Amino acid sequence: MSLDDSGYSGLVLEKLSRSKIQVGDTIRITKDGEEFTGVLMPRSQVGSDAAHIIIKLDSGYNIGLRLNQESTIRRIKGGTRKRTTKVEDSMEKKNLPRVSILSTGGTIASKVDYRTGAVNPALSAQDLYDTVPELENYANVHAKVIMSVLSENIAPSDWGNIARKVASEIQAGTDGVVIAHGTDTLGFTSAALSFALQNIPVPVVLVGSQRSSDRPSSDAAMNLIGAVNLATKADAAEVMVLMHGESGDSFLHAHRGTKVRKLHTSRRDAFQSVNEYPLFRVDEDSVTELHPPLLRRNLERKIKLKAKFEEKVALLKTFPGIEGTLVENLIQTDYKGIVIEGTGLGHAPDSLQPSIKKAIDAGVVVAMTSQCIFGRTDMDVYRSGVELLDIGVVSCEDMLPETALVKLMWSLANSKDIENAKNLLLTPLAGEIDMRSEESDYKILGET
Amino acid sequence: MSLDDSGYSGLVLEKLSRSKIQVGDTIRITKDGEEFTGVLMPRSQVGSDAAHIIIKLDSGYNIGLRLNQESTIRRIKGGTRKRTTKVEDSMEKKNLPRVSILSTGGTIASKVDYRTGAVNPALSAQDLYDTVPELENYANVHAKVIMSVLSENIAPSDWGNIARKVASEIQAGTDGVVIAHGTDTLGFTSAALSFALQNIPVPVVLVGSQRSSDRPSSDAAMNLIGAVNLATKADAAEVMVLMHGESGDSFLHAHRGTKVRKLHTSRRDAFQSVNEYPLFRVDEDSVTELHPPLLRRNLERKIKLKAKFEEKVALLKTFPGIEGTLVENLIQTDYKGIVIEGTGLGHAPDSLQPSIKKAIDAGVVVAMTSQCIFGRTDMDVYRSGVELLDIGVVSCEDMLPETALVKLMWSLANSKDIENAKNLLLTPLAGEIDMRSEESDYKILGET
Repeated sequence: MSLDDSGYSGLVLEKLSRSKIQVGDTIRITKDGEEFTGVLMPRSQVGSDAAHIIIKLDSGYNIGLRLNQESTIRRIKGGTRKRTTKVEDSMEKKNLPRVSILSTGGTIASKVDYRTGAVNPALSAQDLYDTVPELENYANVHAKVIMSVLSENIAPSDWGNIARKVASEIQAGTDGVVIAHGTDTLGFTSAALSFALQNIPVPVVLVGSQRSSDRPSSDAAMNLIGAVNLATKADAAEVMVLMHGESGDSFLHAHRGTKVRKLHTSRRDAFQSVNEYPLFRVDEDSVTELHPPLLRRNLERKIKLKAKFEEKVALLKTFPGIEGTLVENLIQTDYKGIVIEGTGLGHAPDSLQPSIKKAIDAGVVVAMTSQCIFGRTDMDVYRSGVELLDIGVVSCEDMLPETALVKLMWSLANSKDIENAKNLLLTPLAGEIDMRSEESDYKILGET
Repeated sequence: MSLDDSGYSGLVLEKLSRSKIQVGDTIRITKDGEEFTGVLMPRSQVGSDAAHIIIKLDSGYNIGLRLNQESTIRRIKGGTRKRTTKVEDSMEKKNLPRVSILSTGGTIASKVDYRTGAVNPALSAQDLYDTVPELENYANVHAKVIMSVLSENIAPSDWGNIARKVASEIQAGTDGVVIAHGTDTLGFTSAALSFALQNIPVPVVLVGSQRSSDRPSSDAAMNLIGAVNLATKADAAEVMVLMHGESGDSFLHAHRGTKVRKLHTSRRDAFQSVNEYPLFRVDEDSVTELHPPLLRRNLERKIKLKAKFEEKVALLKTFPGIEGTLVENLIQTDYKGIVIEGTGLGHAPDSLQPSIKKAIDAGVVVAMTSQCIFGRTDMDVYRSGVELLDIGVVSCEDMLPETALVKLMWSLANSKDIENAKNLLLTPLAGEIDMRSEESDYKILGET
């Protein structure tokens, strides 16, 4: 990438131009008697501070430095200058595995929008690859942009689209698939792909970042490198989510696609396995299995694509004073399924029972999960649970509410009738329900 | 309590009758060469196993033993036989503080329902006191049943009722109030009382249990004793929730009423402080302050009761594919407020924006929280957040979605107009919003 597109201006641009340094070069900066060595990164014109330079350290971590007139920049090693050629055109290295990176948007592929001051998805897969040049040491990367949206806008119809693109890559013989995705609904999409992509031969790894790549504290590069490592090295044909394993930059955790949830708005380790331990720990140069058994990598296995989802399914969280009209509105607007996020072991206020019964009588599948998030529904313990079971509510055990929503959408689209859909909902297909799990399996946030 | 009401039958009843033992007596059981000493507890006729006896150990923990013909039971010390007299009639001990226990129902006051096999609220405050005889060592207890419901059925109108009863006890000069409450919606009620009871002179402690008192693993007695200790000893005039601090029986944690959430369906340490550390640790004989500053106990302070709540406020959790009709139905059914539980930093799908704007134009207050639960909303970072702020959505910072719902209900009922209600919603009143909190304040589940 030439300096013109690098996003630098003023003092930094001047110093870089003088030394004929380009993005991707390894440089050494001296500032106030200290030395910093790393690869020069582009920045997305954060504008306000032209003295700021971003380099990526050997650790894969980006730092931002504020230069002054006395600071010097020296080139240590040239970067790969061919980055502006198409990734697809580059020669394949025979000894490296092949990985497909599909970009859907989100922070991991974002830059700042100057109209609103906010961050927008914009970087292409090519840009991604340009900003993380070490990827070429790990794999032959085939990168494609399949969507470009912030993940709060990803809808069930998009899941089918993503699943079909993943299936194409797998059928073309990739050794692993990485999907760059916004973090807001990453857990919903990972659950959807877990059901849509059956019998996969290689890993499918969803990855996001909590800080955009133009911020010094970005987790984008480390997460993306880790995802490529996991997708090419892990002996697991599972749909997984890979994100930071703790709030620093020491390691990553891979979570089962159906058992993971964003549990913090901003921390880099926001994603946590719920009612289960993470599947893999990914360090800089190792991928360690934590939670077998797993479906193993097997290139002979033929993928089965089941990419349809019924969109008329709602998630309904109960609260004190909730009125039956909220359920009845769903019946009237032709919803086929309702996943209730009830309280405790799977309860709803008694006042909601007549509307729930009306929904079930009208042919709507009503399933119960818990807003406690951790643990499992057990509707046999208290009267209100027993009464809901009696009118036909399905108890979703230790399934996350979000996973239950996605699975009910999928079950309804892949069943011949309601009874079939209810059975499918409770049949373990991708580790989403564990009938045996105990309280002691309760994943403690932050525990490793 | 006589043996007739004790719930025992068959082998156990026979052995107890032979030794003229009554509930409340300290007994020693020998079984298979082992000895167990504790206070005989009543049981709620779990029926199927007549050989099972329950005693409370010195630790306050109940254990269940299955007796055989060879087992012996011996009385070590008589219990207080006057338990069948009214609590209110007993003599006050001059050197002990006075505590009011108000029972609303829930597992802490439940027994098994033989019609459905499920657990129902049924024990009176008197029964509570009978089953935890050590309470008389800690305080002069004034116990009242004010409701008898499982907490999933507690509605906003009940919060006002509970608040008024608490205010009466405080005005009558109690040294602390304990409220026995089901755990399902304990966090909603604790938030409601935090806003309804202003300027309180003494602690108000909500307490529940995750296992009913007729189960050997019940946490009811330990939690209730701890609540009486906290209410009488803590130098804090705060509304708090007291429950187990870890899954064993070693200590309890007191959480701020506005910052606590049930985060597991069944674990005894299901309640966790969110975005804040617990306020107190309660051990068998000590109450330790963990998280100052607190409003201090001050008997001169005059309580202000603000017990009205607007019931037409809904909590709406977003999900992929959510349709605008869900918001529009709330406008049509005359809702005054909507708390959105959005994704990430406070986002909703773009497709929902027109309906949200319609709601705001119709005079509905729309507030944003995050389904991540931990962390805070920050709607300035991404375009979709910025656009929601522009149309008038209120960002609830680090308020829990449940607390934001309760506070919006309270703000609308205690404001002269919508602008006033929006301002009140974002004004810190009971520790519910902390504008300064950092990521590092992220409470790790299970961390002490």
